[in-house]
Amino acid sequence: MLLQHQTWQEVEFYLTHSTGIIMPIGSTEQHGPNGLIGTDAICAETIAAAVGDVADAMVGPTIGVGMAVHHMGFTGTMTLRPSTLIAVMRDYVLSLARHGFRRFFFVNGHGGNIATIGAAFYEIYAEFEGAFGARQDQELVCRLANWWDGKALSDLSKEVFGDQDGSHATASEVAVTQYVLPKTIKQAQMDPPKAPSGRFHGPADYRRRFPDGRIGSNPSLATPEKGQRFFDASVAELAKTYKAFMEEKS
Amino acid sequence: MLLQHQTWQEVEFYLTHSTGIIMPIGSTEQHGPNGLIGTDAICAETIAAAVGDVADAMVGPTIGVGMAVHHMGFTGTMTLRPSTLIAVMRDYVLSLARHGFRRFFFVNGHGGNIATIGAAFYEIYAEFEGAFGARQDQELVCRLANWWDGKALSDLSKEVFGDQDGSHATASEVAVTQYVLPKTIKQAQMDPPKAPSGRFHGPADYRRRFPDGRIGSNPSLATPEKGQRFFDASVAELAKTYKAFMEEKS
Amino acid sequence: MLLQHQTWQEVEFYLTHSTGIIMPIGSTEQHGPNGLIGTDAICAETIAAAVGDVADAMVGPTIGVGMAVHHMGFTGTMTLRPSTLIAVMRDYVLSLARHGFRRFFFVNGHGGNIATIGAAFYEIYAEFEGAFGARQDQELVCRLANWWDGKALSDLSKEVFGDQDGSHATASEVAVTQYVLPKTIKQAQMDPPKAPSGRFHGPADYRRRFPDGRIGSNPSLATPEKGQRFFDASVAELAKTYKAFMEEKS
Amino acid sequence: MLLQHQTWQEVEFYLTHSTGIIMPIGSTEQHGPNGLIGTDAICAETIAAAVGDVADAMVGPTIGVGMAVHHMGFTGTMTLRPSTLIAVMRDYVLSLARHGFRRFFFVNGHGGNIATIGAAFYEIYAEFEGAFGARQDQELVCRLANWWDGKALSDLSKEVFGDQDGSHATASEVAVTQYVLPKTIKQAQMDPPKAPSGRFHGPADYRRRFPDGRIGSNPSLATPEKGQRFFDASVAELAKTYKAFMEEKS
Amino acid sequence: MLLQHQTWQEVEFYLTHSTGIIMPIGSTEQHGPNGLIGTDAICAETIAAAVGDVADAMVGPTIGVGMAVHHMGFTGTMTLRPSTLIAVMRDYVLSLARHGFRRFFFVNGHGGNIATIGAAFYEIYAEFEGAFGARQDQELVCRLANWWDGKALSDLSKEVFGDQDGSHATASEVAVTQYVLPKTIKQAQMDPPKAPSGRFHGPADYRRRFPDGRIGSNPSLATPEKGQRFFDASVAELAKTYKAFMEEKS
Amino acid sequence: MLLQHQTWQEVEFYLTHSTGIIMPIGSTEQHGPNGLIGTDAICAETIAAAVGDVADAMVGPTIGVGMAVHHMGFTGTMTLRPSTLIAVMRDYVLSLARHGFRRFFFVNGHGGNIATIGAAFYEIYAEFEGAFGARQDQELVCRLANWWDGKALSDLSKEVFGDQDGSHATASEVAVTQYVLPKTIKQAQMDPPKAPSGRFHGPADYRRRFPDGRIGSNPSLATPEKGQRFFDASVAELAKTYKAFMEEKS
Repeated sequence: MLLQHQTWQEVEFYLTHSTGIIMPIGSTEQHGPNGLIGTDAICAETIAAAVGDVADAMVGPTIGVGMAVHHMGFTGTMTLRPSTLIAVMRDYVLSLARHGFRRFFFVNGHGGNIATIGAAFYEIYAEFEGAFGARQDQELVCRLANWWDGKALSDLSKEVFGDQDGSHATASEVAVTQYVLPKTIKQAQMDPPKAPSGRFHGPADYRRRFPDGRIGSNPSLATPEKGQRFFDASVAELAKTYKAFMEEKS
Repeated sequence: MLLQHQTWQEVEFYLTHSTGIIMPIGSTEQHGPNGLIGTDAICAETIAAAVGDVADAMVGPTIGVGMAVHHMGFTGTMTLRPSTLIAVMRDYVLSLARHGFRRFFFVNGHGGNIATIGAAFYEIYAEFEGAFGARQDQELVCRLANWWDGKALSDLSKEVFGDQDGSHATASEVAVTQYVLPKTIKQAQMDPPKAPSGRFHGPADYRRRFPDGRIGSNPSLATPEKGQRFFDASVAELAKTYKAFMEEKS
Repeated sequence: MLLQHQTWQEVEFYLTHSTGIIMPIGSTEQHGPNGLIGTDAICAETIAAAVGDVADAMVGPTIGVGMAVHHMGFTGTMTLRPSTLIAVMRDYVLSLARHGFRRFFFVNGHGGNIATIGAAFYEIYAEFEGAFGARQDQELVCRLANWWDGKALSDLSKEVFGDQDGSHATASEVAVTQYVLPKTIKQAQMDPPKAPSGRFHGPADYRRRFPDGRIGSNPSLATPEKGQRFFDASVAELAKTYKAFMEEKS
Repeated sequence: MLLQHQTWQEVEFYLTHSTGIIMPIGSTEQHGPNGLIGTDAICAETIAAAVGDVADAMVGPTIGVGMAVHHMGFTGTMTLRPSTLIAVMRDYVLSLARHGFRRFFFVNGHGGNIATIGAAFYEIYAEFEGAFGARQDQELVCRLANWWDGKALSDLSKEVFGDQDGSHATASEVAVTQYVLPKTIKQAQMDPPKAPSGRFHGPADYRRRFPDGRIGSNPSLATPEKGQRFFDASVAELAKTYKAFMEEKS
Repeated sequence: MLLQHQTWQEVEFYLTHSTGIIMPIGSTEQHGPNGLIGTDAICAETIAAAVGDVADAMVGPTIGVGMAVHHMGFTGTMTLRPSTLIAVMRDYVLSLARHGFRRFFFVNGHGGNIATIGAAFYEIYAEFEGAFGARQDQELVCRLANWWDGKALSDLSKEVFGDQDGSHATASEVAVTQYVLPKTIKQAQMDPPKAPSGRFHGPADYRRRFPDGRIGSNPSLATPEKGQRFFDASVAELAKTYKAFMEEKS
Repeated sequence: MLLQHQTWQEVEFYLTHSTGIIMPIGSTEQHGPNGLIGTDAICAETIAAAVGDVADAMVGPTIGVGMAVHHMGFTGTMTLRPSTLIAVMRDYVLSLARHGFRRFFFVNGHGGNIATIGAAFYEIYAEFEGAFGARQDQELVCRLANWWDGKALSDLSKEVFGDQDGSHATASEVAVTQYVLPKTIKQAQMDPPKAPSGRFHGPADYRRRFPDGRIGSNPSLATPEKGQRFFDASVAELAKTYKAFMEEKS
């Protein structure tokens, strides 16, 4: 149930039985030689939509450009400054809160977003409550869930890719995009097959250490079939988490 | 050619022969009893993608939530503050400018965005140049085009809908979404068939004057077939405008 | 009736019978070889004051520096960033709203301000209403009117200057300043007499294409007598528009 | 020599022999029963213009609305937030700095502006230099001068008004506006003739303690003739200060 | 070696052999019945100072008020908005970067700061590099370390407090403040001895669930002697981490 | 009574009999050859704490980094932009106002902070009251006191240091830090013994004119014993001022 595919009267009706909404958030940044620049946005958007179907929940519009300052050394990467992303999330959530939404479940596709999302939640709480706590009898709650969270997903990663899933331009996220957008599958040589791992210092250092953009991954192992397994596992996991979130008492 | 469906190496290659990019921008707001909340985002995104195909141009990620303060009286509407939208557009454009993009062609789906887009362009120019004009030997140019711009489109509106196209939740925009997303077609009674017209003062006054959200339109006349005619006409018109824009000398 | 020429008790009395106020907004930017840098501020300020007299309306202080990023290639031009201008307009309007003013009629002297003024209006509405619509039972309305708006003015332009009025450093605006400030009349050679027309890309491109700053105009045709005709026509037109604005129901 | 009354070529010529400019800044706020709401802006603007004539200096556009939060309990008062005023001053000064102006002499008409002006100067210096001091070989200098500064003015105050000049809605500032705008002279009873003095806490407390807005003053003693003496003395004093400022070496 | 206890010439000398600096960051918020409001600031400041001694590193001034929106239901708690904290960290780091510091090691005392610190790092990187990557040949690196990080500390927690250390107003942090500030030791009844655990939604819900402010902890077990063990273990651990950080190549 | 050394229940109790709080604010900037970079923060913090003891008042956390843009030419200096310092002070004061604090007595250690502190007070008042004066029945008052204010202190300066106290890196402030932190006493040659005096233009000009950072001072005359005299005099003076402030009626 995508918010953008409803009429306003349908949203009004939805609010009579739920105040929860799923908010996909991704990134638009390099994902190595065969990964799409939109990988994180695509994963978050498609998985969130499926979670909405399973959990009978409204799904808001995707935040497609996230916090990707560290990838700016690679062509095509886009980024919001953390302060801009905080402002965007604040406007999204407070717009919906005006209509009565109260529980916001962010389905995230990008590790680099996590810190800023956490900061944004508290900027939102501060503004929702007001400086003097006038609205403190009402609770607005935001929750973050990454699509790869949970033991089921990490087990699947080990089973399917062993030690080759990696931490950026992962085999699993490339596989998910191959599953949901089969026409975009790219062929590319990976040299070395498994990219190096490690820390980095800023965009220039990132590019020096990881010249094709991958970290620790071998995404040439990705296939649409494997992607479907990750997709389904993630949807099942997140639907459970969403339901638990909605059942929490305040 | 969607930026999000490319690898970073493909974007690097694209920049060897063009510095232009198409940027869709819409809104997430009420569109009357049978119009989707995402109408403006959907029109901008799908038309921009088709223009990219025709004009062989890169298409950036859609800005899906725009400036819709005046629709906030209707459930489900989302809005960015004008100042937030300016920050978002600045980050989008300057991210891409770092990689070498220089001409930004915004395909807009929402009249209410126009003023803020215009303001954002000059915020961007000011920041790109720097306070002391250090980068003034390079030109970064933004251009705005609404999908309904041009005589071909206004003629079509008169031919297909006479005086019933209206100015919000228009028959033509509803028809475009029916064409591109046939599964989302809604049935709804319109009473009166053609909505009243006129000005309004703020969200509350808007809702008082236009209780179901439409202004001057009769979107029950919309059909997917009519939508296709608007879609095709808009794509043809915008592809021409984009090419002319890219051929302008600076 | 200038706000700055009243005592606070006089403003208090005014508010017992009207909540309307006229707000002049101009720019401080090059206006070609014989146009004053303050042309837009001077036109807006003097015409607004006369409208106030005719319409028996309060007139606020002039915003004398507007959005002129594109003129920054010419010495003496000043500009606010769009985001600063939005903050200024917000503070002006909300200050006056605290005392009970509710209808704000901006008399504008500069085409380059229009987009940012439109964006500012919605920033103001959002802040006036508050994030949760607490003040939505009250309507605060802003309206924009350019001094050259309306058929009477465009007819006069054609009659007096034919095709030589132009679009920047126009013959008519130079004439208005000659009428209201006869001591500032400048002599300057225009070469060519009628400046070239066309679009431009940013400050540097503007200066390359239009080396003396004019666009499409021949302001050597300006005289104080012609200026008076434009001044009078504009005041009559705007007084009518203001009255109609005040009579609109909300 | 008002910047707004010059052509851009005249400003270009001026910069060949001086990089100094006088910047008037006032306020739009209550000034008691016979003082104009624009008193501070009018004093700053007219005195600055005369200083410009005496010192052969360029005079920029007036900042007419200042920092008057503490007067907001009185109808008609307008204020910028301190943070907005800082942004405005930054944009004014950096616009002019781009063209080559380097010494900014602010002629101030309102005590309540002083702190924020001081803060703005350092915001400007920080931005002019850049975070890494790249422009540190160039010096941009801002200086503040109140029109009532100096021994000559305080002696005149004692001579003309004894202990009745006061600290807000002063007899001397009302007199200056009567001199420069004789048509705006107001008649009003003052009860008591000399207003009470003292500190205050916020807008509401201000109004409780000083119900007609004056602090310590008896502006019924103001006359245009007395105003002329203050005007002339201030112009002479400030012209000297400006020249000394321009002669300082850096 | 505290920056605040050096002369500027001593800092100049330090920079000839190291570009690293330790930055303590804490919080000022409720810590239950016997915990100090300044617990997190005190732990971060004192541990950071000792790490500086061990590692022969400069230690900057403490950020004493952090992000504590969720504790605002308890008297005495102070918070910066996330956006303010980001601005503060940006100014701190870029001030020091101007003098040549390049590696910033934040010693953190408050879990609630972690997300915002992460967001701030990328805001800093974006500003240091500039929108167009002009400074991308230089690397400025920020690193976060919590004083309780590492296996040594978690083992010690289990050994000393078993399952009673908790997650807010922990026995170990209270013990550390008792060790470094023995005069501030408080006596208080804990009821129940071990506070309840779990999640919370916003300030009001926090207070409802955890009425005395503690989460999962029994800080009546704290003693100065135990505090010393945690203090020493943390200093040893962080000194190692700092040295490794300084040895990383970029 | 330091806020950071209290439990939240102790603060709650304090508020039953006082709504006043002392807020130390300093700076982290060069103080010449034998002055500590933290001089202003150390003076403000230690004197404020002692005032709190004498006046039985709560003392908040120190703002240790202030507005020191003009000292940025000297290594080790840190600065907040004025706009950042305003945001910090706003968050500090409004956090405490939520709990019931209403009178804020800032003890300042740095002349360069004064303007920005004044600006911040009005930003705070504006936000506390709200745009529409909703909270205008309550008074929140901020007051600034420099530790060197008052005749007692200036007399002591003349008695102890004659004309050698100076205006930056003063003998008296260096002496105060020697008294409170005797282990940090530095030996340094002063050449000339008394530094030159005068104005300056920006950071680079400051360093040119005052190459070792001092202005008009001879801090080699500082001793801990002299420091104690200034410390005690300041505490006595400020305690009186604080009590008078708390006794003011609103």
